[in-house]
Amino acid sequence: MCTSVKIQSKTGEFFWGRTMDLDIPMFPDDSGFYLPSVITSLPSNTRIDSQLEGWDSKYAVIGVGMKDSTVLFDGINEHGLTGDLQVLKECGWASKESIAEKKKTPMLAEEFVSYVLSTFKSVAEIREQFDEFMLLDQPYAYGGTDFHFPVHFSFVDETGDGIVLETLEDGSFTIFDHISVMTNSPRYDYHTTNIRNYIGLNNVNVTASKTLSTGAVIDPIEGGTGYGMFGLPGDYTSPSRFVRAFFLSNNLNAFSKEHGINELYSVFRTVFIPKGLERNEKNPNVSDYTRYWSGYDMSERTVFVQTGKGLAITTAKLDDTIENVSYEEIKISL
Amino acid sequence: MCTSVKIQSKTGEFFWGRTMDLDIPMFPDDSGFYLPSVITSLPSNTRIDSQLEGWDSKYAVIGVGMKDSTVLFDGINEHGLTGDLQVLKECGWASKESIAEKKKTPMLAEEFVSYVLSTFKSVAEIREQFDEFMLLDQPYAYGGTDFHFPVHFSFVDETGDGIVLETLEDGSFTIFDHISVMTNSPRYDYHTTNIRNYIGLNNVNVTASKTLSTGAVIDPIEGGTGYGMFGLPGDYTSPSRFVRAFFLSNNLNAFSKEHGINELYSVFRTVFIPKGLERNEKNPNVSDYTRYWSGYDMSERTVFVQTGKGLAITTAKLDDTIENVSYEEIKISL
Amino acid sequence: MCTSVKIQSKTGEFFWGRTMDLDIPMFPDDSGFYLPSVITSLPSNTRIDSQLEGWDSKYAVIGVGMKDSTVLFDGINEHGLTGDLQVLKECGWASKESIAEKKKTPMLAEEFVSYVLSTFKSVAEIREQFDEFMLLDQPYAYGGTDFHFPVHFSFVDETGDGIVLETLEDGSFTIFDHISVMTNSPRYDYHTTNIRNYIGLNNVNVTASKTLSTGAVIDPIEGGTGYGMFGLPGDYTSPSRFVRAFFLSNNLNAFSKEHGINELYSVFRTVFIPKGLERNEKNPNVSDYTRYWSGYDMSERTVFVQTGKGLAITTAKLDDTIENVSYEEIKISL
Amino acid sequence: MCTSVKIQSKTGEFFWGRTMDLDIPMFPDDSGFYLPSVITSLPSNTRIDSQLEGWDSKYAVIGVGMKDSTVLFDGINEHGLTGDLQVLKECGWASKESIAEKKKTPMLAEEFVSYVLSTFKSVAEIREQFDEFMLLDQPYAYGGTDFHFPVHFSFVDETGDGIVLETLEDGSFTIFDHISVMTNSPRYDYHTTNIRNYIGLNNVNVTASKTLSTGAVIDPIEGGTGYGMFGLPGDYTSPSRFVRAFFLSNNLNAFSKEHGINELYSVFRTVFIPKGLERNEKNPNVSDYTRYWSGYDMSERTVFVQTGKGLAITTAKLDDTIENVSYEEIKISL
Repeated sequence: MCTSVKIQSKTGEFFWGRTMDLDIPMFPDDSGFYLPSVITSLPSNTRIDSQLEGWDSKYAVIGVGMKDSTVLFDGINEHGLTGDLQVLKECGWASKESIAEKKKTPMLAEEFVSYVLSTFKSVAEIREQFDEFMLLDQPYAYGGTDFHFPVHFSFVDETGDGIVLETLEDGSFTIFDHISVMTNSPRYDYHTTNIRNYIGLNNVNVTASKTLSTGAVIDPIEGGTGYGMFGLPGDYTSPSRFVRAFFLSNNLNAFSKEHGINELYSVFRTVFIPKGLERNEKNPNVSDYTRYWSGYDMSERTVFVQTGKGLAITTAKLDDTIENVSYEEIKISL
Repeated sequence: MCTSVKIQSKTGEFFWGRTMDLDIPMFPDDSGFYLPSVITSLPSNTRIDSQLEGWDSKYAVIGVGMKDSTVLFDGINEHGLTGDLQVLKECGWASKESIAEKKKTPMLAEEFVSYVLSTFKSVAEIREQFDEFMLLDQPYAYGGTDFHFPVHFSFVDETGDGIVLETLEDGSFTIFDHISVMTNSPRYDYHTTNIRNYIGLNNVNVTASKTLSTGAVIDPIEGGTGYGMFGLPGDYTSPSRFVRAFFLSNNLNAFSKEHGINELYSVFRTVFIPKGLERNEKNPNVSDYTRYWSGYDMSERTVFVQTGKGLAITTAKLDDTIENVSYEEIKISL
Repeated sequence: MCTSVKIQSKTGEFFWGRTMDLDIPMFPDDSGFYLPSVITSLPSNTRIDSQLEGWDSKYAVIGVGMKDSTVLFDGINEHGLTGDLQVLKECGWASKESIAEKKKTPMLAEEFVSYVLSTFKSVAEIREQFDEFMLLDQPYAYGGTDFHFPVHFSFVDETGDGIVLETLEDGSFTIFDHISVMTNSPRYDYHTTNIRNYIGLNNVNVTASKTLSTGAVIDPIEGGTGYGMFGLPGDYTSPSRFVRAFFLSNNLNAFSKEHGINELYSVFRTVFIPKGLERNEKNPNVSDYTRYWSGYDMSERTVFVQTGKGLAITTAKLDDTIENVSYEEIKISL
Repeated sequence: MCTSVKIQSKTGEFFWGRTMDLDIPMFPDDSGFYLPSVITSLPSNTRIDSQLEGWDSKYAVIGVGMKDSTVLFDGINEHGLTGDLQVLKECGWASKESIAEKKKTPMLAEEFVSYVLSTFKSVAEIREQFDEFMLLDQPYAYGGTDFHFPVHFSFVDETGDGIVLETLEDGSFTIFDHISVMTNSPRYDYHTTNIRNYIGLNNVNVTASKTLSTGAVIDPIEGGTGYGMFGLPGDYTSPSRFVRAFFLSNNLNAFSKEHGINELYSVFRTVFIPKGLERNEKNPNVSDYTRYWSGYDMSERTVFVQTGKGLAITTAKLDDTIENVSYEEIKISL
């Protein structure tokens, strides 16, 4: 229900982004209800509100979150550390008592991206400290509703270093090296094994005729254009999106920094889910689709956002001088 | 190397568009050479230049074409008739003598879209007259180069009626009913048969566990999200793009006219080819990719264009009062 | 619902066979009813009974047919010409009047294999005369039931030459070159185009790690064993069986004549349909599966038959001295 | 490079078997060298030779092994416990010192099936004691060659209970519940997750036309026969064989005990690898293919063996009165 991808320009700058796929509206909708999603900025060196105890931010952050809250779905901080949360059905949480007993720090899944981006400088730092935290089994209250999403997290920094964090059944974190893409279930190590099945995919057209052992000859269709990638899965399930995003993002032409966001978007087009393909059997009006894409020009600390409801692209740049949490609307129509 | 798709709003308006995939630059490029592509307007009731004899236009047309020529790759006329040309390796042409002998009218493939859109009002009219024409085996000279693309054509009108026109080996036309999508080789009847293999695809998530004959139980991954479409091909070959564009465009949620272009674009994202996936074995710097997408709000006679080089979208509306062929640049960057 | 395949030994002998997939029992069955299938021998120079006018055989034939009839599902004659009938939903038939008007010879589909094998010597001969025949729209009465199967035909001779014969809507024949495999619908030219999609399949293991454009490295699974064929379709639909049988039979190791039947069977294993996979929605007790496989050692005029009900293999050799139509039971159990 | 499958008759008896796929000849071969494979019987209550210390057998065993050794590739004992070894690239071994330090019992991988079948009565017993053993990093010497296959194991007993045993990098065992099928790499938990992607596969034909959201209608090909399983992978890689064997074996029609071996074989046909498809890039004469299939009628303690070199089937029944290790040749030709 989400995809995140990292790519690198030929001069070394990183671009990272994510799609947010959900069966709940995130922008004004005919159906009435929605989770109002905005570009949220968190200031540095400020007390950040939480539904647990709150924390003191060290670094300014900009990203996409829920209006009038400190929740971030994804974001970047002033050191170029970026991260997102995505649904993972295998996510585990722990009770307050269990966390206390293990002397860990409880975190709300919904606030974890905000916490990490506002207090960590690099992936290396997260790697050192991730096992101090556990996910608390407590819903996040918002707009009169209790949300309790099962999730996992990815973080990538300016060096290109990246990790995926998932919680085990007992709510404690386990860590994986990030291989430039993250989607949803199953657990991350399934995906890193699964892509190996596609080792034969190729970015070169199959232009020559092929002679089989018997001498039978097969001619390419359409001059063999695109046949190096024949067999790439095209559906929007989590394993198929992983394979597709991985092979596309790792086979791009080398590109310069100025084209980075366009190149990033060119990979995301393929995992941007149209409305109507993932309907709910019991409630056919509900469909999981891409509510928004956010792309980060990491070295510029800039975010580009396009929703699933219109072609407009909203851009914003991190401002590390702000003093209060602030929100900016995301444009829908051109 | 191209895809075109038609969709319809719940109030009956049609939206149609195409991607142009090519291994030749169409916008300013590092490599120097490019086919300068622009939004071209043809006036009504005017003599239109041709590399054959030229013709008198009846209807104003707007579309995407080559600067300083009357070539259109795709367009719409004042009656809402739209059409495009796309590569078809099986395309046939005839000699001037052969055409004369059969008492047909010779056409240059590159000018056929312009000719049809400027002189026909509806698909019904084309259906009646298509066999008066044959494709002449003569290159189209442009910018010092002789082009001779093997192509086929699709036309769709405001009633939703559509046809595909392909030439046989002898250069004469054969006709197929348009089933809302066109891509490239093989011939159209292959594709209309091939999609029937995917009859089991479904737009409903597979949320329940499945019990096999033996009693073995399989649980859905990620709650079954997207598994109704599991198996949809994801590569960019012509047959795979056809299947994907067909099943996505025919499974969208019902949408209102104002969201038509966004819905159209949501289907095209999936066939918009990133740079680098379709490389040429002999010349690895050459890659076939989506040079532009053009989407038409047919009832508004408006075109939206996005290139493969940047996120900007250029829009233009047909003006049936113009008196000369005119050209408008297409924006690249935001 | 059937597959036929031809292969050739390194010394030039041909082996050909077919599976018969049907939702009607062909051997003694719990359900009571069955079409009793046997090894049938037709003598040369004898009057052969027919439900039309009958004909004079020229050549002796052995094959698999229906007991107490002259129907053959497949067979071989004394000149080594082999052939089979298989279901093709697109099959057309003509009325007696229409056939008479066109001055063609009416044939019952069920008797056509017997007719051709007992009166033709080679594929070249069939090629010359096929358009003298049309399929008559008249059921074949057997055991109190009227059968009227929509079918097409393949014939292969000792030179390796082969053809596929299909009837158009009007009952007249059209002809295709045989490319070593035949299955069922759609028409043969769909399949000969469709296999070209699989041009990238390879019979060499992918043992080396693969480095993508970005430098990302993918390691083979299981040392890359079998990954050259990754993506080969495995279901039992007609297009998938065609692709599978074609690529397997054209990628075998070179083999000597004595191993021919074993090699032929090694290809057929993959299209031999187990019981239970192709159930009928309305009548879950009915399942289409492989009722028998017959393999012909063409240069020896020998047939090997295995049913879907047991592991026994029955063998028989053509005897061109017999004087009457005769029947031999097919063994089921070891 | 191997597949094992368990199925159950409607009266409760189990049938289990395996294919042995290898790139080394196991029967007399043109190339000269082969690992002579035979039906091996081990007596009960006898000292069994080993390349380590040897052991006292408790139960008689019959299976397929290497002539003049006590190695078994697969077998069944007098209590109906069956098991096999198969290649697993992720297999780990330990040094003698490391095993001694951990106070475990060292085992040679090649002898482990023989050991377990001759000393264990049930899967439950193995479950209790498996962690007393570790695989020793020492080759198995045979015919002047040192073999050192990376392997894993499956065991199934008469109650249908089954396990898969794999060693971790340190040579210690980890255990998985057997879900009726085992193939090769990657580790077993990859496969048990991976099959869940195919939750939409169905054993019912898709006979009705399908109407999409837009009203577009798709007609089934060939009456929809086999389309419930469309998308089943057909190649011979380990993950694809797992998916195929799992879905076929779990979708068979209910069958009686007398048809058990035929039903078992009907599943194995699909994973029986023809010669030539899995060639070695460096040595094109070497091809991995199915050297033999062995099928066990577990309640009868009977084994059926067919090689990849001929159609003959050899059968043998466990004799628990024998007093010496004995060997029986496996027939090749009919």
